[in-house]
Amino acid sequence: MTPNKVSIFEVGARDGLQNELPVTTQDKIALVEALGRAGVKRIEAASFVSPKWVPQMADSGDVLRNISRQDGVTYSALTPNLKGLELALDAGADEVAIFGAASQSFSQRNINCSIEESIERFAPVMERAIAANIPVRGYVSCVLGCPYEGDIAISEVARVSEILYKMGCYEISLGDTIGVGTPANARRMVEAVSQKVPVDKLALHFHDTYGQALANILACLETGVSVIDSSVAGLGGCPYAKGASGNLATEDLVYMLNGLGIETGIDLHLLAKAGNTISQALGKSTGSKVARAISG
Amino acid sequence: MTPNKVSIFEVGARDGLQNELPVTTQDKIALVEALGRAGVKRIEAASFVSPKWVPQMADSGDVLRNISRQDGVTYSALTPNLKGLELALDAGADEVAIFGAASQSFSQRNINCSIEESIERFAPVMERAIAANIPVRGYVSCVLGCPYEGDIAISEVARVSEILYKMGCYEISLGDTIGVGTPANARRMVEAVSQKVPVDKLALHFHDTYGQALANILACLETGVSVIDSSVAGLGGCPYAKGASGNLATEDLVYMLNGLGIETGIDLHLLAKAGNTISQALGKSTGSKVARAISG
Repeated sequence: MTPNKVSIFEVGARDGLQNELPVTTQDKIALVEALGRAGVKRIEAASFVSPKWVPQMADSGDVLRNISRQDGVTYSALTPNLKGLELALDAGADEVAIFGAASQSFSQRNINCSIEESIERFAPVMERAIAANIPVRGYVSCVLGCPYEGDIAISEVARVSEILYKMGCYEISLGDTIGVGTPANARRMVEAVSQKVPVDKLALHFHDTYGQALANILACLETGVSVIDSSVAGLGGCPYAKGASGNLATEDLVYMLNGLGIETGIDLHLLAKAGNTISQALGKSTGSKVARAISG
Repeated sequence: MTPNKVSIFEVGARDGLQNELPVTTQDKIALVEALGRAGVKRIEAASFVSPKWVPQMADSGDVLRNISRQDGVTYSALTPNLKGLELALDAGADEVAIFGAASQSFSQRNINCSIEESIERFAPVMERAIAANIPVRGYVSCVLGCPYEGDIAISEVARVSEILYKMGCYEISLGDTIGVGTPANARRMVEAVSQKVPVDKLALHFHDTYGQALANILACLETGVSVIDSSVAGLGGCPYAKGASGNLATEDLVYMLNGLGIETGIDLHLLAKAGNTISQALGKSTGSKVARAISG
């Protein structure tokens, strides 16, 4: 069942940078363009959440408008509501994403409403996106645990995933927001969700807070899932995750997939270069072990 | 084939600390004792390599002599030659280890002789250890790649492992010294070696230089191997590994094994406490993501 190819959805320029110190618009544009040159085909580049909440992303429109677009690359934006969607469409996003949760408490604290209310709020976004012929991706957070509730029932993850899929999301990204999952329960979760949403419409979005992300992905690849979210240089991570050590570094993922003979279309050295450059702009060392090893 | 129990061979106090700044003898004793209290049953505590080469280990005799021994815990020492073995026996080591390589170039640069010469040198050590009724463990380094030669033939790993096993080593620890392995080739290597040495006499010693150690272990557990070397707080790492980010942290391994329902007998919180204390003595933060997450 293990796929021959994996499509990497690169979240460093959004999910990553929104949890780092601010960088210039030019740095962001350079990052997105460098990722494209490295062969990354799906790049989350912008977020139209209110700048009151996420000041790091206030220049998202400028980023999307000013990147030199590369053929075959999709530039996506997070859009929590209709206003965000209009801004994203205006700036030329190729696709957008909405952000839900499998945990009531996390939903309340993160987006200030219940799971059900969040789904109601997504309806007009979805409707307008469909009218504009723009694909919508659905994130489900806390799929392997919640910082407030602890364990999350797999059935609840499957339920929320199915709702978002049936609303029209073309893909559901399953987020282990706090990185607490381990291989066996990660795989069980994906298997359960794939009873409700076809496995080729699922993506893994695993954090490396406990160092488990690659092992979890390895276990889940056997279910046939073939889309993985990761963040170049391990940028970002969830600010709610105690001791968060960031997202999974794309370089480390590509290294493993290369070793497994699974195609990604990504040039590892160009990817590491992109990650090292943005890390330098942030004044920190890369969070990718592979990048440190091959650039050292 | 995945085992229900894994025996962890803790190398932090030796393989770890020999690649860190010096700490006091008292710090080492405290570490070894804290590991024992956390439920670790096999602790590499000393090295009788010439202090000219490894000054950090010059007090190994004092460490072994002064720990408060705990029932059921084995305290072991690295002994490259007969002189080292005599010192280890004198200090009361319960078992000793010899260190070979699957790479000629690494053997030359690390221990200044060919693989064949190293094996000749081990013969009198083995003989004396058997006479003293002391078990000998055999390390084989570079099992998934060499910093000088690149790829290493799996057949060579199997050949050297078999020689050490037939010489009388009770267990062969397979070291991915530079951490370049990935899950599929790690598993292929273990499968090949287990054609020559019974799988229950093999141990995995994987470095995390490229972030692959846990994924590699997960893949190899399916071969039935049930002994794993790791280093509390990720202490140490091979100085020859470019960009080395240390050994695999025992805490991260135990976390994964707990999640898989595989018993280790180790208390994760006490283990993290031991790792945090020695990291503090070293003036650095722990190299374990789990320790950071649960202590943060």
